[in-house]
Amino acid sequence: MDPIVVVGGDAAGMSAASKLKRERPDREVVVFERGEWVSYGACGLPYYVKGEVESLEDLVSIPPESFIEEREIDLRTGHEVTAIDREARTVTVEAPEGTFEQPYSDLLVATGARAVEPPLDGMGLDGVFTLHDMDTAAEIRRYLGLEGETDAGDAPDRVGVIGGGYVGVEMVEAFAAHGFEVHLFEMLPHVLQPFGPEAAAVVEDHLREQGVHLHLDTPVDAILGDDRATAIATGDEAVAVDLALVGVGVAPNVELAEAAGIELGDTGAIATDEYGRTSDEHVYAAGDCAEATHVVTGEPDHVPLALTANRAGRAIGQTLAGDPTPVGEIAGTAAAKAFDLAVARTGLTDEERAREAGFDPVSVSITTGSRAHYYPGGEEIRVTMLADRDTGRVLGASMVGREGVAKRIDTVATALHAGMTAHQLSYLDLSYAPPFSPVWDPVLTAAKVLDGELE
Amino acid sequence: MDPIVVVGGDAAGMSAASKLKRERPDREVVVFERGEWVSYGACGLPYYVKGEVESLEDLVSIPPESFIEEREIDLRTGHEVTAIDREARTVTVEAPEGTFEQPYSDLLVATGARAVEPPLDGMGLDGVFTLHDMDTAAEIRRYLGLEGETDAGDAPDRVGVIGGGYVGVEMVEAFAAHGFEVHLFEMLPHVLQPFGPEAAAVVEDHLREQGVHLHLDTPVDAILGDDRATAIATGDEAVAVDLALVGVGVAPNVELAEAAGIELGDTGAIATDEYGRTSDEHVYAAGDCAEATHVVTGEPDHVPLALTANRAGRAIGQTLAGDPTPVGEIAGTAAAKAFDLAVARTGLTDEERAREAGFDPVSVSITTGSRAHYYPGGEEIRVTMLADRDTGRVLGASMVGREGVAKRIDTVATALHAGMTAHQLSYLDLSYAPPFSPVWDPVLTAAKVLDGELE
Repeated sequence: MDPIVVVGGDAAGMSAASKLKRERPDREVVVFERGEWVSYGACGLPYYVKGEVESLEDLVSIPPESFIEEREIDLRTGHEVTAIDREARTVTVEAPEGTFEQPYSDLLVATGARAVEPPLDGMGLDGVFTLHDMDTAAEIRRYLGLEGETDAGDAPDRVGVIGGGYVGVEMVEAFAAHGFEVHLFEMLPHVLQPFGPEAAAVVEDHLREQGVHLHLDTPVDAILGDDRATAIATGDEAVAVDLALVGVGVAPNVELAEAAGIELGDTGAIATDEYGRTSDEHVYAAGDCAEATHVVTGEPDHVPLALTANRAGRAIGQTLAGDPTPVGEIAGTAAAKAFDLAVARTGLTDEERAREAGFDPVSVSITTGSRAHYYPGGEEIRVTMLADRDTGRVLGASMVGREGVAKRIDTVATALHAGMTAHQLSYLDLSYAPPFSPVWDPVLTAAKVLDGELE
Repeated sequence: MDPIVVVGGDAAGMSAASKLKRERPDREVVVFERGEWVSYGACGLPYYVKGEVESLEDLVSIPPESFIEEREIDLRTGHEVTAIDREARTVTVEAPEGTFEQPYSDLLVATGARAVEPPLDGMGLDGVFTLHDMDTAAEIRRYLGLEGETDAGDAPDRVGVIGGGYVGVEMVEAFAAHGFEVHLFEMLPHVLQPFGPEAAAVVEDHLREQGVHLHLDTPVDAILGDDRATAIATGDEAVAVDLALVGVGVAPNVELAEAAGIELGDTGAIATDEYGRTSDEHVYAAGDCAEATHVVTGEPDHVPLALTANRAGRAIGQTLAGDPTPVGEIAGTAAAKAFDLAVARTGLTDEERAREAGFDPVSVSITTGSRAHYYPGGEEIRVTMLADRDTGRVLGASMVGREGVAKRIDTVATALHAGMTAHQLSYLDLSYAPPFSPVWDPVLTAAKVLDGELE
């Protein structure tokens, strides 16, 4: 029997390969990774740039040797798959030793996503970076003189971040930690669009308190400079910078699959069924290149996040081992740190999006404490929660605060998976102890107020 | 129409009265409270003794004047209800101004619970306390010389805590914070029985690290002393102490209801239906004196905790206002702090109890990090989780660690309310960001391992 072949050696690919070999040690599994790094925590890159994570190696979950020696996976780095022949069930592989055809019985496309490069003048200048892999993160540190000599000319002291998504916000924190003057440019009225305007406003105030220069509602026209980036131009000004980090989103790497005639979904990512199978029954797709079903809308969606990739990879490994296992639905649950704040979201947090999905959204925002009112050290938590007027069903929530936010969102995420109403959510028996929560947890209070609005 | 009468002015009683007046300002509501304090946070008492909460007044959620003036509740402190005449629908009230009969249309019994006084020699000595109300907490501080002069003779420096439940453990922390030598006596092999032996073992190690003298598996025979407590006697020794705090559990205050012929349940607390109604259709019961339905077993249970009381009170207020609202089911979710650790639990965490409830329990314990492996400052979290072998349904969990524990248990609590299987729980889309969680949250990892055990 031909081996199972995996294209891409990060979260989805290595999870699938590992699970499959654990369940079926007899099956041959070949993983082709075009780069040199496998199974690394890309979400940790901002903290490497910040200096909280000391080396890139620290970001690697499992070293390549372990996959090869302990898990007996035929892992080949520096191998790029350039074509899929679905008829013949082979892939074309470009490797240091030459190009070859590799037959497969089943194929997993786990090609990930890449940072979007917007069509801006100046994207090619020195000192312009997107953050999407390990090597770029190292280059940014070198360019800023954080690793000794810099080739950026005079010691850099001003950094511009284009794009206020969570990677942008995390990088702002990383740059500020080194004492750079930091400018954040966001074309929309608020940063952190997926977290909703209520949470974003709290983050924006905090960013300003931290000395970050916010340029909201401000599209960037160009990055200026001769060889090296020296300024970011917007409608009415040019802000001098020594480095520009461009973080305006990611795009799924679908070219390989698309060229082979595999169907893409409306989101532009690879369409899959509940088992992660594409339009070709012998080709699966998982991770940042693939769609998944949203638990609230029931529709395919593209939310490239680490857990989704790990989970889908693992499920597909199990399916390929002979135990069909759905990849699971997504709620778009996410959390991010912004200096002293945490911000988190799950489900639908945007009323317009909720209406498009056929709901009649009702939204409330409340502010309450993270601990009992009398217990010292408590912080404010702001919760925004949406429900559907007709059914009372909770659609999503966002929250922001200095403690107890990132994991509190999981209560709402779990309620979304269970299809709970605001009333049901407000009657959950959640934990209470004065150092950790008010009697009515902020999630309960939000659900209670929301339930009242629905009556 | 006769007023609605509430017996007891703490969480359940005041929640019911407040909700009812908010919904039906026209209805007259009379609350009789035999003490002087209403609506106070008894859970905060250990932190008052510790000194983190400065005054008893800080523990009051809402001052009596607000109930009377803003919410227009006829609140009468220093009024004790001594009898219920269900036929006549009146209660007998002993008040400073004399005894009178108060007619009611509906009655809520919210008489709470009291600290159990074990039949030990020496319980009547000076310096022996149970912690069950505001005044006792103040007395303990005075006795220990924390409020100036002490009447305990020489300055106390050794304290014994009898009973290792969560109040006992919280009080150990409170006493140790003042530099006292602290001895904790527990007749069972482990402290924190409802949290299970796995979590308890971690707490015990930590208590010892903090210099607490643990006497496990050690029943106390007597408290020794002439007028004042001077030692705690166990089978083989007498441990010298200057104060003994006895915290061996609480008992529901059911005497008033029982004398009126209202049915008690098997737990000894007042039996209620899903709306909090007792065996008399015009008499409700809520809070620490009443049973509630356990979400996992479906059976009546008695878990006297603050949220249950608040929630049931509020629901009964709504029901009495004409909108029948179930009081909600309980999962026994609880959290506690023990020095630097947090410990939390929900559902069934004891295999024997699970078997008694008709389940075939399978249990796993895992230890994982609270943050991404590479992010600094992460701490270990130990999770124990139980499921039923036949159905895969999650039955309960406990966890312990230095961060991210108290609110992580809520994910499992929510899953219990939804009746999720271990497999479903392992496929939830929970939040991930390196400073707050590994990609696979500890709850997901535990569910994943548990799901594997069920196959």
